[in-house]
Amino acid sequence: MTMFRWKNDNLREDIFLMNKVIQDRLSALREKMTTYGIDYYLMPTSDYHNSEYSADFFKAREYFCGFTGSNGTLVVSKDWAGMWTDGRYFIQAEREMKGTGVTLYKMGEEGVPTILEYLFDNMENGQVLGFDGKVVPAREGLSYENKLKKKQIKIKFDKDLAGEVWADRPALPCNPIYVLSDELCGKSFAEKLAEVREVMEKEKANSYLLCKLDDICWLTNLRGNDVECNPVILSYLFITKKSVSMFVQFDELNDEVRAYCENNGIELVAYNRIISWLDEYEYEGITLYDERNVSYSVYRTVKDNSESAGAGIKNIYDPTEMMKACKNETEIKNIREVYIKDSAVLTKFIYWVKNEIKNGAKLNEYTAAMHLDGMRAALPGFIELSFPTISAYKDNAAMMHYEATEDSNAELAAEGFLLVDSGATYMGGTTDVTRTITLGPLTDDEKKHYTLTAVGMLQLANAHFLEGCNGRNLDILARQPLWNIGIDYKCGTGHGIGYMLNVHEGPHSIRWKSRSSEDEAALKVGMIMSDEPGVYIEGKHGIRIENILEVVNGEKNSDGQFLEFRHLTYVPLDRDAIDKKYLQPREVKAINEYNKLVCKTLLPLIEEPEIQEWLKEETKAL
Amino acid sequence: MTMFRWKNDNLREDIFLMNKVIQDRLSALREKMTTYGIDYYLMPTSDYHNSEYSADFFKAREYFCGFTGSNGTLVVSKDWAGMWTDGRYFIQAEREMKGTGVTLYKMGEEGVPTILEYLFDNMENGQVLGFDGKVVPAREGLSYENKLKKKQIKIKFDKDLAGEVWADRPALPCNPIYVLSDELCGKSFAEKLAEVREVMEKEKANSYLLCKLDDICWLTNLRGNDVECNPVILSYLFITKKSVSMFVQFDELNDEVRAYCENNGIELVAYNRIISWLDEYEYEGITLYDERNVSYSVYRTVKDNSESAGAGIKNIYDPTEMMKACKNETEIKNIREVYIKDSAVLTKFIYWVKNEIKNGAKLNEYTAAMHLDGMRAALPGFIELSFPTISAYKDNAAMMHYEATEDSNAELAAEGFLLVDSGATYMGGTTDVTRTITLGPLTDDEKKHYTLTAVGMLQLANAHFLEGCNGRNLDILARQPLWNIGIDYKCGTGHGIGYMLNVHEGPHSIRWKSRSSEDEAALKVGMIMSDEPGVYIEGKHGIRIENILEVVNGEKNSDGQFLEFRHLTYVPLDRDAIDKKYLQPREVKAINEYNKLVCKTLLPLIEEPEIQEWLKEETKAL
Repeated sequence: MTMFRWKNDNLREDIFLMNKVIQDRLSALREKMTTYGIDYYLMPTSDYHNSEYSADFFKAREYFCGFTGSNGTLVVSKDWAGMWTDGRYFIQAEREMKGTGVTLYKMGEEGVPTILEYLFDNMENGQVLGFDGKVVPAREGLSYENKLKKKQIKIKFDKDLAGEVWADRPALPCNPIYVLSDELCGKSFAEKLAEVREVMEKEKANSYLLCKLDDICWLTNLRGNDVECNPVILSYLFITKKSVSMFVQFDELNDEVRAYCENNGIELVAYNRIISWLDEYEYEGITLYDERNVSYSVYRTVKDNSESAGAGIKNIYDPTEMMKACKNETEIKNIREVYIKDSAVLTKFIYWVKNEIKNGAKLNEYTAAMHLDGMRAALPGFIELSFPTISAYKDNAAMMHYEATEDSNAELAAEGFLLVDSGATYMGGTTDVTRTITLGPLTDDEKKHYTLTAVGMLQLANAHFLEGCNGRNLDILARQPLWNIGIDYKCGTGHGIGYMLNVHEGPHSIRWKSRSSEDEAALKVGMIMSDEPGVYIEGKHGIRIENILEVVNGEKNSDGQFLEFRHLTYVPLDRDAIDKKYLQPREVKAINEYNKLVCKTLLPLIEEPEIQEWLKEETKAL
Repeated sequence: MTMFRWKNDNLREDIFLMNKVIQDRLSALREKMTTYGIDYYLMPTSDYHNSEYSADFFKAREYFCGFTGSNGTLVVSKDWAGMWTDGRYFIQAEREMKGTGVTLYKMGEEGVPTILEYLFDNMENGQVLGFDGKVVPAREGLSYENKLKKKQIKIKFDKDLAGEVWADRPALPCNPIYVLSDELCGKSFAEKLAEVREVMEKEKANSYLLCKLDDICWLTNLRGNDVECNPVILSYLFITKKSVSMFVQFDELNDEVRAYCENNGIELVAYNRIISWLDEYEYEGITLYDERNVSYSVYRTVKDNSESAGAGIKNIYDPTEMMKACKNETEIKNIREVYIKDSAVLTKFIYWVKNEIKNGAKLNEYTAAMHLDGMRAALPGFIELSFPTISAYKDNAAMMHYEATEDSNAELAAEGFLLVDSGATYMGGTTDVTRTITLGPLTDDEKKHYTLTAVGMLQLANAHFLEGCNGRNLDILARQPLWNIGIDYKCGTGHGIGYMLNVHEGPHSIRWKSRSSEDEAALKVGMIMSDEPGVYIEGKHGIRIENILEVVNGEKNSDGQFLEFRHLTYVPLDRDAIDKKYLQPREVKAINEYNKLVCKTLLPLIEEPEIQEWLKEETKAL
C-alpha cells in the first residue's frame, strides 16, 4: 500500500451537526486550562509510542476540532484555536472544521508559520505551554522546550487535559497477547535478546529502553491486537544486562503468555506504571533510547533521573529496527509461501471481478472489496487484514487515500480500471499487493499509463546493483518511464514490510527525496519492500502496480557484491491494459518473463479449470 | 576527466638512489622536533587553501618520505615514521618508500588504524603534536584537537618545520594576475559582491573570510596561474559590510590589476600577512567562514581573537560555491561556443590519429597527446590545458590515473583503443572531454563494453527529472547498463566544471555513494557537469566516454518543474566500436540522434573536405 494513512470515519457522522458541540468541548478544555494555569494546550496525532496508526482512544485532536485526517496538530489558547495539517487534507479539514471557530494552518504554504514559530511569536514571556507528554514525541517536545525557553515559557506535560474533559472517551485498546513459536520466528527471544545485549555492550550501556511497538513484538516473539491491522501490543521494554521488564496491560495476558514470560526471564509490569517505574528506577551507567520513538514524558523521566543519579543517556537508532528488517531464513521461507498463497487469492479475485462485471453483476467498490476480504479470511492461517482494503474505481483511484465505505462508494461498470490495494497478516507473513484491473474498454491514456507503470515496476524489480545502494539510488528506475512523459507520483516508490507485523516498517525505503536519515539505510539481503509506481490523473484515473520484492545476493566479483531483487508477488500484469507500442523489446521480454513465472507459480494452487485457462491466456507472451 | 589526481613526477628520478637521502632528511627534521619540543610531526597533502592540486612548494610529505602520490599524510616521531595513503597508491607507495624506514599504513584496510587512532593510542599523556597549521584544514586540525585533549596532548601549529629543513625548497608560485572583463564574466565584481553581502546580511554577519581560490577568482573576476592547470591566485579575501581586503603576493600585480582593485574598493594586503593581519583585526559581530576551506591556523586566529573581542564566528558553506556553479547567461553562451570549437579540435584529432595509424605512422601515447595539445594551443583564446592530457593505449587505459611521459609510454598500433581525456581553458570557458578511439580491430568484449558505456552516457544525458534531484538520484542511469553485466567503474560519474577556472568544482556531482554533504546539492539550471561512465579491465582495456552537460529547464506542469540536460560536447561516438546487438531500438535512436547533432554542429567548423566526408560517414545512422 502507499505510504499515506487511511481515514478513520468513526466520527464523521457527527460532523455536520456538531459545530456547537466542538465549541462546547473547547470551552470545557479552556476551563481545565485555567484550572492548571496553562495558556496554550497542544494536541498532536500520536499514541504513546509515536506509532504510524493509533487507536480511537488517542484521537483527542479529532474530538476537539472535528478534523478526522491522519495528520494534524491542534493548539488551543483562551481565545483562539488553530489546527495545522498538510496538503493532502486542506480541503477536508476546511470542510470538517466549518463553524468550529478553529483556524486552519496550511503546512508548507508560503507565509504560514510552523506551530513552533506561531507559539514563539504569540506566547508571552513566562506563559505556560501544556500538552500530554506521553503523546508528544521526545524530539518534538525538545524542540518546543529549546526554542520557547528563550521567552521563559514553561512546559507542563504531566496533564492529559483531553482525558479530563472527554467523557465518552473510547477505552485504551486491550486485546489478548499470543506467543509465536520459535519455529515460526526462526529465532528465539533469547537469541534476539543476546544480539541486542551485544549492541548494548558495544555502546557501553547498562540499560536500554525500547518503546517501538513492532520492535518489541519482533524481539519478544509476542503479538497482540492493539492497533487496527497491526498485530502489536501496547507495551514498553526495559532491558538491562541481566533483566528484562515488559510493561503491558495485565488484562491482555493469559496463562500461556505468563508462563512464556516467566520462562524467558521477562518481568511483567503494569503498562500504566511506566512513568512511576522509570521515576523510581536506580539508574547506573548509560541508558540507550531512540528519540524518534520515545515520548517526551518518558524521555524526561529517564533523563532527569539519570542525571540526578550521575548516570547518562544515549540516543541511538533502535538496533532492533535493522535486525527486524533483515528477515531470517525461516521468515523468508514462510514469507515466500504466504505470498504465493495470497497471490493466488488475488488472482482468483481478479478473474472473479472481471467475470462478474462482464456478466452484468451489480457490484460496487465496497462489495468487491468485501468479497476479496472474505476470500483472504478463508485462507488457513489468516489473522487479519494488514490494512483496510483500498478499492477505487476510475477517477476515485486518482485520490491516493480514497476509501470506499458501505455508504459511500462507486458502482463498478464494464469500462475503465478498478484499483485494488490489499493485504493480510497470516501465520507466516504479512502481505501487501496492488493491482489495477481492467473492467472494460480503456482510453489510450489509460493503456499508456498502465504500460509505463508496469515498465517502471519491472525495471526496479530487475535492477542489478552494488551492495551499498539505498532507495535513493534506485528510485529513478521505477519513476523514469513516467518522468519521461512528464508524470510523477507524489509518494515514495517503496516501503519495508514486517513479518506478521506492520505493513510499513523501516529503516529502508525507496524514495527519491529523503525524509530523514532513516531513509538512507542501504539495502541488505533479507530485506523485503514494496515496488509500487503509479499514475494519478485527477478526475480521470488512478493506476498503481505493486509487487513486493526480496533483496537477494547477485554475483560477487572483483568489482564487488551485486544485489538483486526476487519477486514475492505473483499476480498477472493485465494484458488488456498493455500496449506494445510503448515498449522496447527488452521491456516486452521482462513482462513476458514475469507473467510466465506467475503462471508457473500459481497453476498448482488453482483448482478451477476455467480460472486455469484464463490464467494461461492472461499470462501468455505478448 | 575522472576525479582522480594525476601523479607528479618531479621527484621521481631521485627515488631509486635516495633511501639514505630520505633518512638524512628525517634526521634533520627530528632534530628540529627536539628543538621545538615536538614529539610527533604531521605533514598532509595540501596547500594553504585545501586545494585539490598543490604546487611543488607544498610537497613536504613527498620530500620527507619519497612517496609522490596525490594523497598521503606522513607522521614522524623520534623513532618511527608512518605514511597513510589510499588503495590507489598501495603498490606505488611501497615501491617509492623502500629503504626509507617509513611504515606504510593502508587506509581502509581491516585492522589499520586511522592517523587519529594511531596518535591517540601511541602518544603519551601530555606530549606535543606538531604540524604547520597553514596546510592542515580546520576540520582535520579540530578533530586532532578534540580527540587528543583527552590525553592532555598539546598541539603546536605555528612552526613549518619542513621549511626549516628543506634547503632547496621550490619557491611559492608567484605568477601574474590578470583581469577578466565584465563582458566576459556576465556579472561585475560589484554585482557579485552585493549578492555575497546579501548572504552576510541574512546570516546577520559583519564579516566573511573567503579562502577558496577558485571562489575568490570567480568573485573578483581576476585570474592567475598559481596552481598547475588551474588559473587561480594564491589569495584570501576578507569582506565586511563596507570593505574588501585581498591578500596577494604583490609581485603578482601589474598596474592594470592595481587600478582595477582600487576602482573596485579592494584593499590589497601582502599574502604572507594573513595571520598577523587577522590577529590584529578588531572583530565585531559574527565572522563567517567555511571550515572545509579554511586552514587550522587561520581558523584559530579568527576564532581566538573573535572570542577575546566578544564577537562570534559561524561556519557556513561558502555561498560563492553555489553562485559560481550556476553559470549566468553570458557564461553559458560563451561556454557553448567554446565547447563547440574544442569539440571540433578533438574530432579533427580523432580523424588524424586514426589516419596516421592506418598509414603506419610511428606514434606513441605521448606524441599523440602532444599533437592534440598543440592543436588546442593554436586555437584563438587558448590559455592553458585544464589538466595534463591523459593518453592511454590498450591496457594502460585500465589504470585510471595512468600518465604517459616522454620517457615512459606505449607505442600505438593498428588495434584496440586509445583513450584520450583532455581539455583546456580558453577565454570563454574550461573544457573537459574523453573519447575512446578505435585504432584497429577490437575484441567482442571491447565492443560490448564501449557500446554499453555509450548507452549509459546517453541514458544519463537524456534524463528527464524533477527539480530537487541530485547526483545520487541520477547516477544509476549511467551505471545501469554496466551493472547489468556485473561491471562497475570505481569513481564518480560526473563533476562540476568551472568557467575559466578549475576543471573540478562543486557543490554538485554525480555519484551513487555520498562522500560528504556537499555531494547532496540538487541540480539547478545553469550548472554544468561531466557525464563519464567507463569500463576498466585490468590488463585488457580501458574505456571512458565523457560528455559535458548543461542543466536546462524541461516542462513545467502540475507535477512540478522538470529538468533536462543539454550536450555541450559534440564529438562523434565511434561507430567501429558500437555493436548493435547490445542495443535496444531506443538506444540505437539515441546514438543516431546524438551523432547527427554532432555532424550538424561541427560541419561548419571543418574546412578539410576529407574530414567532412569522414565525419558524415562516422555519424550516419547505425
